[in-house]
Amino acid sequence: MIRAVVWGENVHEQTNQTVRDTYPDGMHACIAEALNAARDIEATTATLQDPEHGLSQARLDETDVLLWWGHAAHGDVSDEVVARVADAVWGGMGLILLHSAHFAKIFKTLMGTPCNLTWREAGERERLWVTARGHPIAKGLPDHFELENEEMYGEPFAVPEPLETVFISWFQGGEVFRSGLTYRRGAGNVFYFRPGHETYPTYYDENVRKVLVNGVRWAQPDAPRLKEVHEAPNRTVDTALEPIEERGPKLHADGEKGFR
Amino acid sequence: MIRAVVWGENVHEQTNQTVRDTYPDGMHACIAEALNAARDIEATTATLQDPEHGLSQARLDETDVLLWWGHAAHGDVSDEVVARVADAVWGGMGLILLHSAHFAKIFKTLMGTPCNLTWREAGERERLWVTARGHPIAKGLPDHFELENEEMYGEPFAVPEPLETVFISWFQGGEVFRSGLTYRRGAGNVFYFRPGHETYPTYYDENVRKVLVNGVRWAQPDAPRLKEVHEAPNRTVDTALEPIEERGPKLHADGEKGFR
Amino acid sequence: MIRAVVWGENVHEQTNQTVRDTYPDGMHACIAEALNAARDIEATTATLQDPEHGLSQARLDETDVLLWWGHAAHGDVSDEVVARVADAVWGGMGLILLHSAHFAKIFKTLMGTPCNLTWREAGERERLWVTARGHPIAKGLPDHFELENEEMYGEPFAVPEPLETVFISWFQGGEVFRSGLTYRRGAGNVFYFRPGHETYPTYYDENVRKVLVNGVRWAQPDAPRLKEVHEAPNRTVDTALEPIEERGPKLHADGEKGFR
Amino acid sequence: MIRAVVWGENVHEQTNQTVRDTYPDGMHACIAEALNAARDIEATTATLQDPEHGLSQARLDETDVLLWWGHAAHGDVSDEVVARVADAVWGGMGLILLHSAHFAKIFKTLMGTPCNLTWREAGERERLWVTARGHPIAKGLPDHFELENEEMYGEPFAVPEPLETVFISWFQGGEVFRSGLTYRRGAGNVFYFRPGHETYPTYYDENVRKVLVNGVRWAQPDAPRLKEVHEAPNRTVDTALEPIEERGPKLHADGEKGFR
Repeated sequence: MIRAVVWGENVHEQTNQTVRDTYPDGMHACIAEALNAARDIEATTATLQDPEHGLSQARLDETDVLLWWGHAAHGDVSDEVVARVADAVWGGMGLILLHSAHFAKIFKTLMGTPCNLTWREAGERERLWVTARGHPIAKGLPDHFELENEEMYGEPFAVPEPLETVFISWFQGGEVFRSGLTYRRGAGNVFYFRPGHETYPTYYDENVRKVLVNGVRWAQPDAPRLKEVHEAPNRTVDTALEPIEERGPKLHADGEKGFR
Repeated sequence: MIRAVVWGENVHEQTNQTVRDTYPDGMHACIAEALNAARDIEATTATLQDPEHGLSQARLDETDVLLWWGHAAHGDVSDEVVARVADAVWGGMGLILLHSAHFAKIFKTLMGTPCNLTWREAGERERLWVTARGHPIAKGLPDHFELENEEMYGEPFAVPEPLETVFISWFQGGEVFRSGLTYRRGAGNVFYFRPGHETYPTYYDENVRKVLVNGVRWAQPDAPRLKEVHEAPNRTVDTALEPIEERGPKLHADGEKGFR
Repeated sequence: MIRAVVWGENVHEQTNQTVRDTYPDGMHACIAEALNAARDIEATTATLQDPEHGLSQARLDETDVLLWWGHAAHGDVSDEVVARVADAVWGGMGLILLHSAHFAKIFKTLMGTPCNLTWREAGERERLWVTARGHPIAKGLPDHFELENEEMYGEPFAVPEPLETVFISWFQGGEVFRSGLTYRRGAGNVFYFRPGHETYPTYYDENVRKVLVNGVRWAQPDAPRLKEVHEAPNRTVDTALEPIEERGPKLHADGEKGFR
Repeated sequence: MIRAVVWGENVHEQTNQTVRDTYPDGMHACIAEALNAARDIEATTATLQDPEHGLSQARLDETDVLLWWGHAAHGDVSDEVVARVADAVWGGMGLILLHSAHFAKIFKTLMGTPCNLTWREAGERERLWVTARGHPIAKGLPDHFELENEEMYGEPFAVPEPLETVFISWFQGGEVFRSGLTYRRGAGNVFYFRPGHETYPTYYDENVRKVLVNGVRWAQPDAPRLKEVHEAPNRTVDTALEPIEERGPKLHADGEKGFR
C-alpha cells in the first residue's frame, strides 16, 4: 500500500463560489478520492490551515508520496515545514507538484530556479501530448488528451532540464508548455504536472486521474527513508578502504567534523 | 574579453601558516592570475571581507563568470548577496564552484539538494579521468591527469544528475567522485570542479589551470543579462497570439498580477 | 510475473576450462538462476547456438526483459536478430547489457556511439560506488561493494550521457568507469551493467545478483508492446484536431505515405 | 573560420517546380548562403549526386560542421558514406540535421531509435518557442517566432531524451513537437532542427537563419579530430598507473587485442 498525502492550500475553496461549487470538499479531497480509487494507494489529506500545515515530522515519516497544490498563499507556508519536506524528499519521499505549485516554496527550493512562466486565464482548450511513450507515468494514456477549459501556462518555463519530459501541452491561444517533468532530488522522485486550475473541473477528468495514480506509483520510494541527508562523514586514514599513509599538511584533526 | 570575478573566502590564508605559505596573496589571487594568463579573460577578485563581499549589484552586472571558493565561513555569507548572485545566474551569468564550495549557500540554492559527500584529508593521490571527450571544458587535456596530494571527496555526492559528467576522480584510498559537472540554471551555465584543497598547491597545476580557463570560456553568457528573472507575465486574451474567446469562470481580473 | 530471457553467447564455456569450471552450465544459466530466486521473475535462457539464437519473434513477443552477455562472437550474431531485438526494445521490451556486451551489435545500435573503452585482465579489485541513492536499481545495496577479482574497464567510455549514472567503479590499477547506466530507447528501458568477466565468479556475488534482480524489475515494461515502432502516420487536414485549411503548395497527395 | 559543409539531397529541386522556384540553386545553396553571411563561417555544399555524395574522407577531415537535408532519397545514401560521417562525428565533427533528415540513415544511426513522428503537409502556421533561454543556439532570438506556412511534425517523436530541448513548436492543427534538440555522440555535437519543408521558403526566414548560424557555432569542435574512435586499448599490468600484480585466471595473452 502506497501512503499518499494530498496537501491542499484550501483557500479559494473558502473564498470563491465557483471553486466551492466545483470542489465542495476541497480540491485535496477530490484528488485524494481519485487516488483512493486505485487499490494500491491509500491517500489522506492535509491543508495549510492544519497545525504545522498537517505536515508534522511524524506524518512525513509515514508518507511515501506527497502531492502539493497551492496558489494564493505560497507565502503563508512556513519555512520550517518547507525545510522538513525538502529533507523528506532528499531522504526518499516522492513529491508531486500540481499546477500553480510551480511557485510553491518547496518546488523552487528543489529546482534551484525561479520556476516562472507566462499565463492566461481564459478557459481555453489544452491538449497534452505524450513525449515519453513507455514512461510509467504515461501508462494507459492515449498519445494525446484534451482538457476543454484550462488556464494557459506558457514557455519559457524556468526549470532545470528534467530527467525526462513526459508531456507537452498545446494551447488554443498559441502557446506550448512542458506539462510533465521528472526529476530526482537526493533519493526522492519529483514530478511536476501542469493541469489543475481551481475554477475548472480538471481533477475529475479521467486522464488526469490516471496521471495522478501513475505519478504516485512512479514517485514512491524503493528503499527506507535515508536519515542523515546532510551528513558529510570523515573517512579517516585508518578506516580507508585501501591502505594509505597520511601525507602533506592538514587543516583538520583526525575525526574532526568538516566545515559547512 | 570575458570578465571573470574570482571570489575567495580568504579565511585560512589569514589563519593557517601552510595555506599562507602556499598562497601568499590568497587563493583567489592565484586563480585570477591563472585566468589572466589567457588572452581573452580579464579576471579580478573579491573576498568575504569586502563590503557586500565584493559582490555589489553593479559589480555583478559587469561580471560574465563568477568563480567561488569557500570553506570555513559559508555561514558568514549574507543571504542577500546569495540571492543577488542567484538572480545573476538565472539571468545568464556563468558560475564556477570550486572544491569545498559544494557546501556554499549559492551552490545548494542552485542545486536544490544537500550537496553532501564523504571526505578525508590525507594528501592522497587523485587522478581525474575525462568522461566527456570533446567537451569544451576538457579541451587540451589528456584522458587523465594526476594531483599527487589532494583531499578526498567520495560518492554518493548528493547533487542532481548533471547535463554532462566531464570528469570522474579516482582516489588512492578507494573512493571515486564526479569531479566535473555541468548544469544550466535559468539562462546561466554552472560548473562544479572538485580539486582545490587549500593546504595543497592545486591551483598552480597546469591541468587544473586549463580546466579553469576552459570552464570560464564555457560558462560565459551568450546573450545580454535577462532582467526580469522572476516575472510571470499575464498574456491576456486580447493580446493572445491566436484568436481566442474567453470562456468559463475566472479568478483574476484582466491584466491582474498572478499569485506567488 | 516478469518474463526474463537471459541470452548467453556460450562460447568460452565450451572452449576455456576456467570458464567451464566456474560456470559448468553456462553463464546464462547462472544468471537465470539468480533471477529465478526472486519470486516475481521467471527467467529462461537462450544462446547464440540456438536456432535464430533463441530469439524468434514469438519468443521476443513473450519477453518482458532481455539480458545479454556476449564477448568473443559479437560478429556471429545475425543482423536480422539484432534488428528484431531493437524493434522489441523500441516497442517497450527492457534490455540489460552485461559487461563485454558493451561491444554487442545491439548495444552499439541503441547507443549510436562506438561504446569503446580501455581494459586490462589482471584479476584486480573493483569497487562499485552507488551514485544515485534511491534509484530502484540500487535498492538494498550498501553505498559501495567490492569484487575482489575483475577485469578492468576504463574511461573514456564512448556512450551517450545516460538518464542516470547509478554506479561508478574504482579499480586497483588506477582507473574509473561508469558501471551502471540507464537509458530509454523508444518505449524500452535499457540498463548497462559492467561487471561479469567470464573467468571470475562474479555472477555468484550477492550484490551483483541484487543488481540483476533490481535491474529486471526496473526495466520491465509498463504497457503492452507497441507494434508499429517505425510508423510515421499522415494526419490529414480533414482529420486534424483543430480546424485548419490547406494552404500553399504541396508535394504529397492526401493520405500518401511519407518518404523514408 | 568555421568550415561548414551543407549537404543537400537535391532531388525535389530537380523534379518539383515549386521547389525549383523557391530554391533555384538548390536548398543547400540557400542554406550555405545564410551561413556565409556570418563572418566566422565558410560554408560550401555537397549533394547526393556528387561522387561519394561529396563527402570523401578528405573532405570530412576538413569539415568542422556538417549540415544535412534529405527527404526523398534517404535510401540512396551509401552505407559506406554514412559510416564515414558517423566516424567523423564520433571524432568531433559537428552535425546538424534539418527537417526531414529525421529519417536520414545518419540520424537514426546516431540516435539509436526509429526517429518516427506524425506529419501533415497543409501549409499551416508553426510557432517555435524557446525552452532553453540562454542556450547559445537561441542567441539573439525572441521568446517565440512564427513560420506562416510549414509542414506539421507531431509528437511522439521517437528520439532519446536530449541534453537540452531548445525549441518546442506549436502547430495550428493542434500538435506540438520538440523542434530543437541537442546531443553529444562521442566527441561530436549533434543538433536536430525541425523546420524546412521544401515547398516553403523557410530557409529565407531571418530567425531560421539565426538558428542555423548559432547552431554551427555551437556544434563546432573544440579539439582536433579524434582518430581512433573505435580503439579499445589494452592497458597492461606493467603499464598500469598504480602498481598491481596479476591475479587469477586469464583469457588473453599480454598485449592481445580484445574481442569485438
